[in-house]
Amino acid sequence: MKVVLLAAGKGERLEPITHTRPKPFVPVLGSTLIERNLSIIRSLLGNVEVFVVISDSTDPEYERFFSRLNNVKIVRQGEKKGTGGALSYVPVTSDEIAIIYGDIYIDRDSLSRVLAYEGNAILGVEVPNPSEYGALLLDSEGYLNGIVEKSPTPPSNLVNGGIYKLSSSIFDYIDSLKLSPRGEYEFTDALTAFARNQRIKVIKNMGSWKDVGKPWDVIDINKQELDSRPEKLEGEIEENVKMIGKIIVEEGAKILSGTRIEGPAYIGKNSIVGPNSYVRPYTILGQDVKIGSFVEIKETVVMEGTKIPHLSYVGDSVISEDVNFGAGTLVANLRFDEKEVPMNIKGKRQSSGRKKLGTVIGAHVRTGINVSILPGVKIGAYARIYPGSVVDRDVNRSEFFKN
Amino acid sequence: MKVVLLAAGKGERLEPITHTRPKPFVPVLGSTLIERNLSIIRSLLGNVEVFVVISDSTDPEYERFFSRLNNVKIVRQGEKKGTGGALSYVPVTSDEIAIIYGDIYIDRDSLSRVLAYEGNAILGVEVPNPSEYGALLLDSEGYLNGIVEKSPTPPSNLVNGGIYKLSSSIFDYIDSLKLSPRGEYEFTDALTAFARNQRIKVIKNMGSWKDVGKPWDVIDINKQELDSRPEKLEGEIEENVKMIGKIIVEEGAKILSGTRIEGPAYIGKNSIVGPNSYVRPYTILGQDVKIGSFVEIKETVVMEGTKIPHLSYVGDSVISEDVNFGAGTLVANLRFDEKEVPMNIKGKRQSSGRKKLGTVIGAHVRTGINVSILPGVKIGAYARIYPGSVVDRDVNRSEFFKN
Amino acid sequence: MKVVLLAAGKGERLEPITHTRPKPFVPVLGSTLIERNLSIIRSLLGNVEVFVVISDSTDPEYERFFSRLNNVKIVRQGEKKGTGGALSYVPVTSDEIAIIYGDIYIDRDSLSRVLAYEGNAILGVEVPNPSEYGALLLDSEGYLNGIVEKSPTPPSNLVNGGIYKLSSSIFDYIDSLKLSPRGEYEFTDALTAFARNQRIKVIKNMGSWKDVGKPWDVIDINKQELDSRPEKLEGEIEENVKMIGKIIVEEGAKILSGTRIEGPAYIGKNSIVGPNSYVRPYTILGQDVKIGSFVEIKETVVMEGTKIPHLSYVGDSVISEDVNFGAGTLVANLRFDEKEVPMNIKGKRQSSGRKKLGTVIGAHVRTGINVSILPGVKIGAYARIYPGSVVDRDVNRSEFFKN
Repeated sequence: MKVVLLAAGKGERLEPITHTRPKPFVPVLGSTLIERNLSIIRSLLGNVEVFVVISDSTDPEYERFFSRLNNVKIVRQGEKKGTGGALSYVPVTSDEIAIIYGDIYIDRDSLSRVLAYEGNAILGVEVPNPSEYGALLLDSEGYLNGIVEKSPTPPSNLVNGGIYKLSSSIFDYIDSLKLSPRGEYEFTDALTAFARNQRIKVIKNMGSWKDVGKPWDVIDINKQELDSRPEKLEGEIEENVKMIGKIIVEEGAKILSGTRIEGPAYIGKNSIVGPNSYVRPYTILGQDVKIGSFVEIKETVVMEGTKIPHLSYVGDSVISEDVNFGAGTLVANLRFDEKEVPMNIKGKRQSSGRKKLGTVIGAHVRTGINVSILPGVKIGAYARIYPGSVVDRDVNRSEFFKN
Repeated sequence: MKVVLLAAGKGERLEPITHTRPKPFVPVLGSTLIERNLSIIRSLLGNVEVFVVISDSTDPEYERFFSRLNNVKIVRQGEKKGTGGALSYVPVTSDEIAIIYGDIYIDRDSLSRVLAYEGNAILGVEVPNPSEYGALLLDSEGYLNGIVEKSPTPPSNLVNGGIYKLSSSIFDYIDSLKLSPRGEYEFTDALTAFARNQRIKVIKNMGSWKDVGKPWDVIDINKQELDSRPEKLEGEIEENVKMIGKIIVEEGAKILSGTRIEGPAYIGKNSIVGPNSYVRPYTILGQDVKIGSFVEIKETVVMEGTKIPHLSYVGDSVISEDVNFGAGTLVANLRFDEKEVPMNIKGKRQSSGRKKLGTVIGAHVRTGINVSILPGVKIGAYARIYPGSVVDRDVNRSEFFKN
Repeated sequence: MKVVLLAAGKGERLEPITHTRPKPFVPVLGSTLIERNLSIIRSLLGNVEVFVVISDSTDPEYERFFSRLNNVKIVRQGEKKGTGGALSYVPVTSDEIAIIYGDIYIDRDSLSRVLAYEGNAILGVEVPNPSEYGALLLDSEGYLNGIVEKSPTPPSNLVNGGIYKLSSSIFDYIDSLKLSPRGEYEFTDALTAFARNQRIKVIKNMGSWKDVGKPWDVIDINKQELDSRPEKLEGEIEENVKMIGKIIVEEGAKILSGTRIEGPAYIGKNSIVGPNSYVRPYTILGQDVKIGSFVEIKETVVMEGTKIPHLSYVGDSVISEDVNFGAGTLVANLRFDEKEVPMNIKGKRQSSGRKKLGTVIGAHVRTGINVSILPGVKIGAYARIYPGSVVDRDVNRSEFFKN
């Protein structure tokens, strides 16, 4: 078997996180979505050949991430767009192929049940909102009859989970694809045609599954992953530290005096927390993160190398890599009217479904001292926020914001 | 004996505290002025009949408070104004009557000495500023000869303490009252007439007594009450908590790690303090209050359900019920010139007599992050303060303040 | 031997520190430059006669400092300007004279080697930038041949260290001085003439030496002095205090619970640190300083009586005496572009050579709550900073700053 990981999507809905990192590299505890999936695949299938399809025009910052993947074959997607287009560039050399979308968070068991299935298989996931996905048509024996994309009247609430194990003859169907009305080559069209001739078992998802489409999904998948992990206390924990509940402290991390950590919480490799910090449930710190004195943080994903060193409050947020918070930078995560916090996604205002939502900050951002960030605001990569500012709107990539 | 509590005053001078709560319900440690007085009365006189005279036009928020009083008869004051008017609506059914003004803070002993006196009695209180009160005229034997209201040349510095125990024939005099020049029926006129025919002993106050007229008086009476109470440590106190001096922690309260409390201090029922809070002397927290991480608070009365969760400094202030402070909300309590802090009372700028005075905040107020509140500023109930604002003037009820 | 300390310089480059204190009184741990030098001199030479030359027109605030010097003779410099002018007012009564510039920080050993030398001597200091000083011309035997002031092509990198031991005949040369082109009487001209007739040994400096010319030099000399001192733990240290590295706590000081101190650090007499403070390396606190709750401070010199009581961050700064920080006053010490921080010195923008530099604040300054101070900004003595301000430029003496 060969494995194909589809990683060419631009991830605009995940901006500003994707200003500097490819969508499949959104963080999952100390790792990333794609690295976690690869690690699960390798533990299931051994040293199988893996193709990673990436966009032909990724910028240098993206390359840095892809080059972290060991022992994979990078395939660049050429002119042909869509998931079908992406797969058409993969050299077929095997009788069986596993195809995994790059933005799917899935638990290890469900992934393994698809990969281990003898015959063709697709993951089917029950969701409350099937009209936003490709809903699956099943026959009476549980095999796939077709996929109905984003229908207002979906045939079921079981949708395409983005994980397939197929005979390599699928590539014949891929090669025969024609442009869809939206100008792409749709893999699901190939799949539907394939299903007419071959049986594809629908494996029902029994655990976690998440299509990571919106910035706040990054918080959710990290919460789910954290809930699935056992406690672990490595690193160095000073005296006068209060730790409550399940906490994972990775090696090289230091928890300094006067700190209180309420789990579940994840403290990444070589991160420093404290002194006198207050880390609340579902705080997820990547590698080399600094949470310093008189900082309170909760339900927030902080990526590698970011520093929140003094006198900050951060809640319900996603902070990308190498961000530096000036002292007294505060994040508001609740509206005065206590309504669900909206956020602009590809220029369109959408409800996040969360009453508590803070900010999403791109990489390499610097905030000055005494900065206030309002609920649902996004700050683009490399932006600078002038001291004393109240960030009351989205900030563009590299913008200097002052009010 | 029957007891009448006069609770119909509008308490405009106590705004914004009285935006949502009747004046007699200003907090006294975990209780209120009127509930505390009722409890003392019941412990002295048993299950005596108690009338509470309230205004005919109280708003629904006021009603909620009055309905908390168990086992009393609510009497609504009709058209007749003034204390005499108020009493005229009380049905007379007893030979003796105790009359207690609703805004008087008095210690238990003094109150008991008036109530236990055989014969007519009035509390006389020595004050440094008798021209602001009704000064008492005494005969050589210590009986009342008359009351001189707010005279620039008061006959003594002994003034009307607002506590009486009288024969029910006082009601004949009340019924005969005529409108005073300011258009009210003055109970003290009835009293003066009554004193011409019956002897009224003046019982001199020996302990605490305070007419709660200005917002900062709420701080003072709570300080006095706290000084009179013994230490009590219920609730749950975590390790790494430093407690110094006399502290009262009520049941259900939690003091979390890293907190320092310097007494005298009162932590109300089910309140949570910490982690890493700094509570200084004469902090008075009502029920269900939250004082959170990196918050310093001193000489401040905080009413029930209010949350000051992170990175705040609050000193010399009164914060009403169900207020929420955004992270980094700071209260200034000292002028640059270190002069006495003035405050607007019924639209008139008055000195508080205090060099340190912070803010008075009405109920249900929400402040954004990084808000600064200047000394002597009042914020009306239901107001919203935009993040980053400097509140440099009084804020009206329900106002949205932004600068 | 007699000793002359030159203390008449106006120290404009050290403003605003010198708004209220003479330049030789810049702090060195709990003492000052001149008092420290005096104390070394007395320990080496016993109760020798010491003249301190001060300006004729010092203001009353300066006088307060000079009056602290015990057992010295104050000499006022008259109309004759320059170091030569200053010395011309000293009454000559001795065969040998030591002359020490008032703004030199030097280690005890180097000072003692000059004073103990049998014969005439001058301290020579190797510096990387001799063109900014008076470079020394030496003969083959190590005796002084002349001094070349601020030459673009200095003869060596050994410069005039500002410490001399000379025969009193030097005064003959001083009396013969003529006005230099810049209108002063230059002592080094007298020295050059003297050197033509008498041998002056150049004693090479082996330890610390610093001409305290710029505000940030005050940080440097305190760091050097602290490095040379042994640990000392007097005062009172509460439980739950974490102390790491070499720390000096003077008598009467109190370190309150929840505080972390990372040495090297100096806590002056009767200072109070905590509760819940975070004191980082090279914090130097004078007498009666208060560093309060939720305050982080690093590499900063704080002078006597100054209070930083709550929720502040201060780094790489010099804070003069009797300053009061409002809650939430934050000092930024790093530019967004991470370039060296410039500062205005006598009206001219100069690089400090430091990537991290905060603020320099004169005496008696008051800042309001939530004030932000930008890197490299200077605040004049007696200034007031309005709450919520972002101090983005230098503030004049006594200015009321608001933006």
